Amino acid sequence: MTKDTIIAVYTIKNTGQDIKKLAQNIAIGQTVGTWNDLSNNIRLQVAKHLADVISIEDHEYTSTIKIAFPIENFCDDLGALLTSVYGKISLIPKIKLEDIEFSESYLKLFKGPKHGIQGIREILSKNEKPLVMSIFKPCLGLTPGELGNMFFSQAESGIDLVKDDEILYDKDFSATLKRLEACLEAKEKAKAKTIYAINLTGQASEILNRACELEKNGANCILFNYVSYGLPLLLSLRQAVSIPIMAHPAFSGALCMSSTSGLSEELILGKLPRLAGADFVLFPSPYGSFSWDKGVTKGIHKELTKPQEHIKPIWSVPSAGVKASMVKEIVLDFGEDIVINAGTAVWEHKDGASAGAKEFIKELESLSLVKS
Amino acid sequence: MTKDTIIAVYTIKNTGQDIKKLAQNIAIGQTVGTWNDLSNNIRLQVAKHLADVISIEDHEYTSTIKIAFPIENFCDDLGALLTSVYGKISLIPKIKLEDIEFSESYLKLFKGPKHGIQGIREILSKNEKPLVMSIFKPCLGLTPGELGNMFFSQAESGIDLVKDDEILYDKDFSATLKRLEACLEAKEKAKAKTIYAINLTGQASEILNRACELEKNGANCILFNYVSYGLPLLLSLRQAVSIPIMAHPAFSGALCMSSTSGLSEELILGKLPRLAGADFVLFPSPYGSFSWDKGVTKGIHKELTKPQEHIKPIWSVPSAGVKASMVKEIVLDFGEDIVINAGTAVWEHKDGASAGAKEFIKELESLSLVKS
Repeated sequence: MTKDTIIAVYTIKNTGQDIKKLAQNIAIGQTVGTWNDLSNNIRLQVAKHLADVISIEDHEYTSTIKIAFPIENFCDDLGALLTSVYGKISLIPKIKLEDIEFSESYLKLFKGPKHGIQGIREILSKNEKPLVMSIFKPCLGLTPGELGNMFFSQAESGIDLVKDDEILYDKDFSATLKRLEACLEAKEKAKAKTIYAINLTGQASEILNRACELEKNGANCILFNYVSYGLPLLLSLRQAVSIPIMAHPAFSGALCMSSTSGLSEELILGKLPRLAGADFVLFPSPYGSFSWDKGVTKGIHKELTKPQEHIKPIWSVPSAGVKASMVKEIVLDFGEDIVINAGTAVWEHKDGASAGAKEFIKELESLSLVKS
Repeated sequence: MTKDTIIAVYTIKNTGQDIKKLAQNIAIGQTVGTWNDLSNNIRLQVAKHLADVISIEDHEYTSTIKIAFPIENFCDDLGALLTSVYGKISLIPKIKLEDIEFSESYLKLFKGPKHGIQGIREILSKNEKPLVMSIFKPCLGLTPGELGNMFFSQAESGIDLVKDDEILYDKDFSATLKRLEACLEAKEKAKAKTIYAINLTGQASEILNRACELEKNGANCILFNYVSYGLPLLLSLRQAVSIPIMAHPAFSGALCMSSTSGLSEELILGKLPRLAGADFVLFPSPYGSFSWDKGVTKGIHKELTKPQEHIKPIWSVPSAGVKASMVKEIVLDFGEDIVINAGTAVWEHKDGASAGAKEFIKELESLSLVKS
């Protein structure tokens, strides 16, 4: 029987256990639960749910195993996907989920990002060169009017995107709506196309309604902490609104900072949020004081941008430690389809935030890009 | 100015960095974003959101820092809580979130579990001794009728709780409703009070409606993979239904299996799901082939059961590797208010699942418990 499957890739630190047996236990334990004790009739009945061990590769200190899971066991339910491929398995020491290889039939279950790289370029009427983004700082405690003024200084200076800080929380949703109104007025006044990624917070039961309310009130982008709130909510958010979605990596380090457990950075910050429908994903840059390994950040970038059936390539946003003087280096590292996250650097400019923004714009304008 | 706060406790692996400066950076960076560059007026305005470094303790290889975060920055929004205390911080190498010390004013924002230990004892009319639970195995691919028969064998034998396997996924919600109907009929036929923890799956946008539908159709408990789907959804589930909630630890290992990053086991499997409203939490037992450290499991148990204002103590369910012969040992380790998770052991009994269940019941009946 041919089954439609996806392939989960694990690395296991070798501690003397029987890897072949462990792989079999995962394939059976995470699908039909038991096999040897089953009657032939029941085996026939449950076989379509059984996972198969595809390969086992032994290295010096680790082994890599690949297991094919039937799509039927989770379909387009991302909570069920995580439970199937890394539910109980996550609790066994020294097994890390490195990758999930999606198949064509699995990808067909998802719409993927609505806008992607090309769609966002169309919104901004910018057909080439990187985009540049700044972030409100401070944000908690400021009035909508103050944030509106900050937005104006950025929009007028030619910044493409302004985002809320991901920690910006409103006890009362009306405060979010007031901030949106102030920033939309500032955008109007600046006659700019600036995208404003407004932070979405709230109880899981109300967050999708809030997103729709923001869209109805003119929001042109939503910022969402998809790891803190749960990956499945990102997918539902993609279904609930048509405006672009910017995925923030807050809390993702809880899943991906260990070399022997959890998920790879490429999976949680690359493959999964793109599948769920984000148009932008922020991740730690290879620059600055808490820089990430450049190979890892390029790996995330690749997952966000590589061709993948109908699932559009999206914007990769290496963040933190980015300065105007680094624009060329960033483009050399990641290419032209990148968001330069000026972040807080613009606010620290000695001549003010407009001057800070313009410094980035100038660097970008001076770039002569080689078309690929 | 006095602020209502909670205290986040981090351990940092010492790698030569300036811990005091790092602690200050967390307190400022995760709240107001910047301080030195602010005018006095703005400082006054944002001060109520600023976190404070409470203490720094240096040990041989690690430092422990405690930071007080204003409740105002997240209130009862658990996604915002995780973003505040461990959002960007999670992405810095070698910083682990060990604990969150809740304050009385913070706990007041939550209802906590609806039933807790006492409430479940009342539902089952069992005023003493541990409860015993079994799990459908296999489950994927079986018909509602087959699962109903399995349920009957357990209910009739005196098992207190039967749960779905956490990997049980229904593409079509009507299949879940049919399974529920079959198990409720079996319960009726057995004239038993057995609690059936039915697995809740689905898109984030529909999962709460599904939960309400299950309750309306007579479900007396819901099983929920709260880490795969997101902790905030557990809190919303607690608001949406009145029946007991059983929290499953699937995928939690992705967060808690590293000693230098992520969250402690006590936090993600103890404190947080109890706060969000679970009545039962499963976690890996200190028995069997992939056993967890006994101290850690006792720490989780303590978080689930210790007195904590109006937040009821709940059922601790150490799971995997449990056999009938171990009942006494488990009670000695964890006390009387515990669910003995017979799990799959009952199905492997040479004389069938009824005999398997009865073996556990017999062991429990033979216990003479010392009342505390």
